[in-house]
Amino acid sequence: MDDILEKLTTLLEERRNADPNSSYVANLHEKGLNRILEKVGEEATEVIIAAKDAGNKTDNTDVIKETADLWFHTLVMLNHLDASSAEVLEELERRFGVSGLEEKASRSQ
Amino acid sequence: MDDILEKLTTLLEERRNADPNSSYVANLHEKGLNRILEKVGEEATEVIIAAKDAGNKTDNTDVIKETADLWFHTLVMLNHLDASSAEVLEELERRFGVSGLEEKASRSQ
Amino acid sequence: MDDILEKLTTLLEERRNADPNSSYVANLHEKGLNRILEKVGEEATEVIIAAKDAGNKTDNTDVIKETADLWFHTLVMLNHLDASSAEVLEELERRFGVSGLEEKASRSQ
Amino acid sequence: MDDILEKLTTLLEERRNADPNSSYVANLHEKGLNRILEKVGEEATEVIIAAKDAGNKTDNTDVIKETADLWFHTLVMLNHLDASSAEVLEELERRFGVSGLEEKASRSQ
Repeated sequence: MDDILEKLTTLLEERRNADPNSSYVANLHEKGLNRILEKVGEEATEVIIAAKDAGNKTDNTDVIKETADLWFHTLVMLNHLDASSAEVLEELERRFGVSGLEEKASRSQ
Repeated sequence: MDDILEKLTTLLEERRNADPNSSYVANLHEKGLNRILEKVGEEATEVIIAAKDAGNKTDNTDVIKETADLWFHTLVMLNHLDASSAEVLEELERRFGVSGLEEKASRSQ
Repeated sequence: MDDILEKLTTLLEERRNADPNSSYVANLHEKGLNRILEKVGEEATEVIIAAKDAGNKTDNTDVIKETADLWFHTLVMLNHLDASSAEVLEELERRFGVSGLEEKASRSQ
Repeated sequence: MDDILEKLTTLLEERRNADPNSSYVANLHEKGLNRILEKVGEEATEVIIAAKDAGNKTDNTDVIKETADLWFHTLVMLNHLDASSAEVLEELERRFGVSGLEEKASRSQ
């Protein structure tokens, strides 16, 4: 499943320089950091509301869509600041020692 | 870079059933959905503040760390609702047609 | 300055039953709690962004406008849940013992 | 009910210069704008979660407490930026024409 995030990162970098009139991503970059961060805040709120509703109706469709929206807008934000999703994943790997713990988990099976 | 997210998802699923006294992840699950969503909201706020500071000082260290925190807590939320990061990535792939656009991009090089 | 909040609360209660096509407030109520809470989240984000900008340019115009938007939408939310701004102010009074501390402050002058 | 907000504003201004070890408000100011804004974001999230729960159980106790927390931290933020709650209320009055509409409402009774 995993190279989707890498491909999406590449796609978002390309679209950054597209025509703001035809590309939503280019339009966000043109509007600037504040507009991108407003979208991050909006989508975080929508994730929380959808998760509360999912907790009640045990249907995850909306929470998956809203989480996709949130991740997408954080990717645009990272790109706008010339940071990358790879750096975020490396931070997660470093912090949680995923490789090591994965290895330990597979040995304990 | 990419299988980090898949490994982290597996790790978080394992830790869900760990001892809440020794595992932060198990502790979040025990406290329940509201506590997990409070963390999602907190981390989204910290991403926004760090991004504003990054915009001023052109240093992305904090925004990368805070984005890692935000993604991490959305992964815990997905797991708590028995949803998966794979479903979010599939939604992103479906929506942005990443495969197709990637192919087009490589042909145009 | 203070009865503005009381008058606004009364106004918002009246508008709740207005025509959703002509009243923004009635329209929010018709769309329901989730839409009102999305607005609370959006406006909280805009307060944070405006406050960061105010911190840099020492101009509070935007942060005052965005805080007005945030308070306004929390008033609509309270009304939608049949709660009132008076109950929130009573909670603040009870918690911070405003009357007592005000008295103590005036005696120490 | 209304002068509570004015008294609280006065109280918060006094406490800004209190000992950060004994006053929560002074401690927030010492930690700075980012810490205050983190609290605004946290409390907005808790308002949203409490409102979703209130919508399900028709008990408004928590949403009133969380809204009090949110308003309180926006007051600290305004004070930190040398803005005042009076300016926010004036903005609301100006925007919604409360006086005028109140008058019109009383005439139509």
